[in-house]
Amino acid sequence: MHILIIGAAGMVGRKLTQRLVADGALGGTPITALTLVDVVAPAHPAGFHGTVNTSAEDLSEHGVAAQTIRDRPDVIFHLAAIVSGEAEADFDKGYRINLDGTRYLFEAIRQAGLARPYFPRVVFTSSIAVFGAPFPDAIGDEFFTTPLTSYGTQKAIDELLLSDYSRKGFFDGIAIRLPTICIRPGLPNKAASGFFSNILREPLVGKEAVLPVSEDVRHWHASPRAAIGFLIHAATLDLGVLGWRRAISMPGLSATVGEQIAALRKIAGDKAVALIRREPDPTIIKIVAGWARNFDTARAKQLGFVAETSFEQIIRAHIEDELGGKLGG
Amino acid sequence: MHILIIGAAGMVGRKLTQRLVADGALGGTPITALTLVDVVAPAHPAGFHGTVNTSAEDLSEHGVAAQTIRDRPDVIFHLAAIVSGEAEADFDKGYRINLDGTRYLFEAIRQAGLARPYFPRVVFTSSIAVFGAPFPDAIGDEFFTTPLTSYGTQKAIDELLLSDYSRKGFFDGIAIRLPTICIRPGLPNKAASGFFSNILREPLVGKEAVLPVSEDVRHWHASPRAAIGFLIHAATLDLGVLGWRRAISMPGLSATVGEQIAALRKIAGDKAVALIRREPDPTIIKIVAGWARNFDTARAKQLGFVAETSFEQIIRAHIEDELGGKLGG
Repeated sequence: MHILIIGAAGMVGRKLTQRLVADGALGGTPITALTLVDVVAPAHPAGFHGTVNTSAEDLSEHGVAAQTIRDRPDVIFHLAAIVSGEAEADFDKGYRINLDGTRYLFEAIRQAGLARPYFPRVVFTSSIAVFGAPFPDAIGDEFFTTPLTSYGTQKAIDELLLSDYSRKGFFDGIAIRLPTICIRPGLPNKAASGFFSNILREPLVGKEAVLPVSEDVRHWHASPRAAIGFLIHAATLDLGVLGWRRAISMPGLSATVGEQIAALRKIAGDKAVALIRREPDPTIIKIVAGWARNFDTARAKQLGFVAETSFEQIIRAHIEDELGGKLGG
Repeated sequence: MHILIIGAAGMVGRKLTQRLVADGALGGTPITALTLVDVVAPAHPAGFHGTVNTSAEDLSEHGVAAQTIRDRPDVIFHLAAIVSGEAEADFDKGYRINLDGTRYLFEAIRQAGLARPYFPRVVFTSSIAVFGAPFPDAIGDEFFTTPLTSYGTQKAIDELLLSDYSRKGFFDGIAIRLPTICIRPGLPNKAASGFFSNILREPLVGKEAVLPVSEDVRHWHASPRAAIGFLIHAATLDLGVLGWRRAISMPGLSATVGEQIAALRKIAGDKAVALIRREPDPTIIKIVAGWARNFDTARAKQLGFVAETSFEQIIRAHIEDELGGKLGG
């Protein structure tokens, strides 16, 4: 089996690559080739014995998508996107990368199939940003998509294209809407959602972190490990049961910042919690107020997608996957 | 006030032009110029004393949209599209006309505004084809868009683009989802929905019509007169109350074929009803089974959009507007 990952240099792309290499197979079929692309060339994965191709490619450039899929991968993970803040600041770039790039990929697959039968599985990472406030208490599987950002608009359009291309038989696609990934490994970043991870990741290794909102802010989370699980499951699931409603919200954990901190205290004690510095930021408070707080993901659960059910699980997954199972601090 | 109608040669476009010419004003402001475009040049409207420009243009061709809006119309009605059957049969043409053409228009408006402030009202005709079965008993204002045709997909994407361009302040847009227009004037056509009009229009003038489905088929209707009313109201309404949820389902009448026939009997008698020939058509029966039957359009009603509440009203509107107020047959 040949697997293509577009956006392989990002956090999710690297973790997905590691998992596929560790498993050596997908859905019981051995993985013989990996093609890893991103706007910067992804690293060669260690420990993989099949064929590996890595390259720096921008799907939004003319003709690139056809090249990217020229070896007809069986499964395509399309994770590439510019993030919400950048898509909002640069309207043209957002539409070019997040809409046109994705459409060119879908169209390249269709054209390849018109030349000679080709029917890959396409797993596309969408986002809960397709939804925009005001929300019901829990966003159900049939709630409408009224994004409040250009990024969310682009993802919602990609979902519609993916469903139509699937319906027409051009590929077998599924769009999964990821919760906010928490705890994001790496350095603290300036994304408006960064603090959800910062206030756990940094104190766990004895460092200070800034909390810019109040403890009653509620949000929708899943660990990187759960996100990789969603991707693997989406790649191997029989999609016939979905009909043509190919975009689904992934399960997650609805939790307040206060609940996050309580879980941190349970695992790492008061000393860790004391490292959280409260510095209310009116800009971040306003942005976060428009975000989804809770979902009812009955459909995804029925299909076998599984996420964490407590923040202690999310923290323990981080300690196991990023800190070698041991607490610092 | 300068008004541009794109798709002015179609049935709705011609009726809208007539209405604007008859009114001489829109929202209390005199109409001084009309620009009428379509893929075939629209007719010059009789009785209009302002400036008229008519031209044959295809918005999906490079550079055309910028030309179309070069005189900076204050209100733009965008009615142009290829129909559902054609968009389904010709995938490329459907996306080119119904998606790219619309996106080029929106982008041309944005570019004009970047050069020099420009903020027109844009009224876009969407369709209930943005919804796909299975449906609830009545489709509410927050039901998700899962189209089952490429046409419906293209309209749903256009709605998302319109909302995002409006949110970013590039124009003041509204997308209205029209019910099936009944009674469509003109000759019987082969569209799968044609029979809803044929079984009333033809018997009213003493001609036979074919009914390919059973009398218990329920569907969602509004008269051409109501549709023009929606467009005028959408062009003059304060859109601030909509927030960024700029796509709304228009009110209509949910009625069975049996109810249509009962109204025909009341107005034109048994002789007219006897002209309906029952010829079940499995293909049409299957297509129609996937169509929306009923809506709860609380939002549109609250905003002042008004449709017929009985099929007798719909038939009487047809007799007044198309038959000079008199019954033939």
